Amino acid sequence: MLSALDIARRLDAGTLSVDALYDEIAATVADREAEIEAFVSVDIEAARAAAHSTYGPFAGMPIGVKDNIDTGDRITAYGSPIHAQNRPAVDAAIVALARRAGACLLGKTVTTEFAFFSPGPTRNPHNFDHTPGGSSSGSAAGVAAGFFPLALGTQTGGSVVRPAAFCGIAGFKPSFGRLPTVGVKIFSWSLDTVGVFAKGIADVAFAAGVLADRDWRVDGEVPTPPRLGFVEPQPWAQADDEMSVALERVRRAADRAGAATASVSLPPVFREAFAAHQTIQDYEATRALAAEVDLAPDKLSAVLRQTLDEGAAISATAYDDAQRTAEQARRAFSDILSKVDVLVTPSAPGAAPIGLASTGSSVFNRVWTLMGAPAANVPGLQSFAGLPLGVQTVGAYAADRRTLKAAHWLEECLRAQASDS
Amino acid sequence: MLSALDIARRLDAGTLSVDALYDEIAATVADREAEIEAFVSVDIEAARAAAHSTYGPFAGMPIGVKDNIDTGDRITAYGSPIHAQNRPAVDAAIVALARRAGACLLGKTVTTEFAFFSPGPTRNPHNFDHTPGGSSSGSAAGVAAGFFPLALGTQTGGSVVRPAAFCGIAGFKPSFGRLPTVGVKIFSWSLDTVGVFAKGIADVAFAAGVLADRDWRVDGEVPTPPRLGFVEPQPWAQADDEMSVALERVRRAADRAGAATASVSLPPVFREAFAAHQTIQDYEATRALAAEVDLAPDKLSAVLRQTLDEGAAISATAYDDAQRTAEQARRAFSDILSKVDVLVTPSAPGAAPIGLASTGSSVFNRVWTLMGAPAANVPGLQSFAGLPLGVQTVGAYAADRRTLKAAHWLEECLRAQASDS
Repeated sequence: MLSALDIARRLDAGTLSVDALYDEIAATVADREAEIEAFVSVDIEAARAAAHSTYGPFAGMPIGVKDNIDTGDRITAYGSPIHAQNRPAVDAAIVALARRAGACLLGKTVTTEFAFFSPGPTRNPHNFDHTPGGSSSGSAAGVAAGFFPLALGTQTGGSVVRPAAFCGIAGFKPSFGRLPTVGVKIFSWSLDTVGVFAKGIADVAFAAGVLADRDWRVDGEVPTPPRLGFVEPQPWAQADDEMSVALERVRRAADRAGAATASVSLPPVFREAFAAHQTIQDYEATRALAAEVDLAPDKLSAVLRQTLDEGAAISATAYDDAQRTAEQARRAFSDILSKVDVLVTPSAPGAAPIGLASTGSSVFNRVWTLMGAPAANVPGLQSFAGLPLGVQTVGAYAADRRTLKAAHWLEECLRAQASDS
Repeated sequence: MLSALDIARRLDAGTLSVDALYDEIAATVADREAEIEAFVSVDIEAARAAAHSTYGPFAGMPIGVKDNIDTGDRITAYGSPIHAQNRPAVDAAIVALARRAGACLLGKTVTTEFAFFSPGPTRNPHNFDHTPGGSSSGSAAGVAAGFFPLALGTQTGGSVVRPAAFCGIAGFKPSFGRLPTVGVKIFSWSLDTVGVFAKGIADVAFAAGVLADRDWRVDGEVPTPPRLGFVEPQPWAQADDEMSVALERVRRAADRAGAATASVSLPPVFREAFAAHQTIQDYEATRALAAEVDLAPDKLSAVLRQTLDEGAAISATAYDDAQRTAEQARRAFSDILSKVDVLVTPSAPGAAPIGLASTGSSVFNRVWTLMGAPAANVPGLQSFAGLPLGVQTVGAYAADRRTLKAAHWLEECLRAQASDS
């Protein structure tokens, strides 16, 4: 796997040439893409050519961009046959910012249909029989496969944190509104957030910080033990046995390594917030996709059509109630996060499920997305079958750096534990 | 001027035929468009053809759509030469919702460059030497000129309320997030809001309610006297003498007609909020238009380039501070709006300024847009020179109907006063 920070440093120092990097990527893609199918389109030579004349913190860096994010020079189909020939007028803002920092578009990556449920063909690099997660399937799988060191995705429910967990990489969804969604195909305007994928936490912190023009870097620091709030089991989000055991071991390891750990019980408003997430998402999606519904209903998947039908049946009153519930939960969340640096929970119920018909469950992500909270998947755990398991740190709104620092510490803690055992 | 409600009723009752309506519109456009220049493109026969097979509350209704809002069947240039040939893949969500309700696209209307400062050619129908206001210049002027009974616009600062005031029509900007901005060219994602223009308050309440799928109608009601909070002079927003006198007369008329009027003094946080609006707008615009800045900087106006340069110099810390100030002001605003139904302030410093080089000032609108508050321009006042003067009602977040009801009452109050004098 390629580290974005490492590549940036080596390209800058001249110990890695642009051509050597793109040669290696071309070989990896040639070797593995036929089985993984992370890309909807890829142009390594265009990226290589661009890389020779770029400047900035990402100078020469190849990136994968989820195909629900507009690119002015590539078809952007949003995972839907309705848009199979869609060529946006200009890049999405986040793509323009990435290119301005020197990033070079290697390819557009597979998204589920409109970043919702119906999967594309992408397979998990760790086991081709398993899903890579979604909706940012190709961005996560492509980083894990070594196709690119950095990728962009989006999260409405759990579409960054979950695929990062399933693919054993770092994924970071910043606070709501921190990265521009201009030129992203919106599914739910109260929820959709741009996120980044990379090898480790220091890589996503570097990359997200460049894009947000904020000092989020954690590399070069000696991580200090954070205050970790381990969320007690939530009735609406059940971890499987393997994940439950893994989380318990994470807690013991964190304790031993000097973190202040506490158990955090979520008040009842979070159960309501879990339901409110779906109400808000479906109500807004029905309106966000109104043009597609009217233009080509037969080109929507059955699952999406049903969701949009259900969304159309949600009353404005129910939507307003859900938004009020979200506000109440945000206040409770803010109180909880005043006592710990981050919450720690599974990133998903377990390892990547078998099969490609579903990208797995976002039950462990939705509430935090609704809170607008920064959330980072911490890689480093494995299932008995050798698949990655992920835990996430979730921070207070706008506490992006603190969330990344805690994730960085936890990543080091898990690494030390793995090398001990 | 055409009333949307009246046209809907007459088309439904069969006392107005689709062809008679479009004949009248064609004659008006032929007569006046050469001087007013409200349209960037117009196709009356396409709208007429569509009108013969539409259903719903807007069945057959011709609409104008501001050209920063995507339409799948018309070029959408965002007021910028960069996008002169831009043909969106699909309608913006708000356009799809309008068409679903039966509306027929008559034309795309002139916007300032990216809905910011640099004006298009549109003239004020009341006096061609004066600006119609902006940034929704063509939508407001087109309603006032009788080209269409209903139009869509957007507001980041004062781009709905101000042009409505200058053109002597009703304009309504709902609460933030109530109408989808999916497919709108975003300038500032924390501020941009879709709004509607029509002849009177009952028309905009009808139209906005259909689009938001909410019961916002006020027609058929006997308006009851509201509690009106008249905002005391704000240091950052100076009305001219004529507007000051007009507002005083509005207050006396409201008192006489039975409203409970009070003077409301804004706490100091609102002065900070006024500055925060610009910080947030410019910081976000710099990122929202990153692709255009990098692709074709020479095709941006000098004013916009300067604004984006200034936006690029705003630090993340300053932006975060501005967002915190906005939150504090929202809490103070919510307290103030617990004591009155709406605030009443000028919609603009005075009547439409002379000349077309500027669309006038949004100093009376920015803070309320930052509050996410619903705001309605109430037409009915005139300057000595015969130009329209507008006052606005501003309601609590999510109190859209109450805001419209108060505006409706005030509109009737001004009408009674005008017929008395």
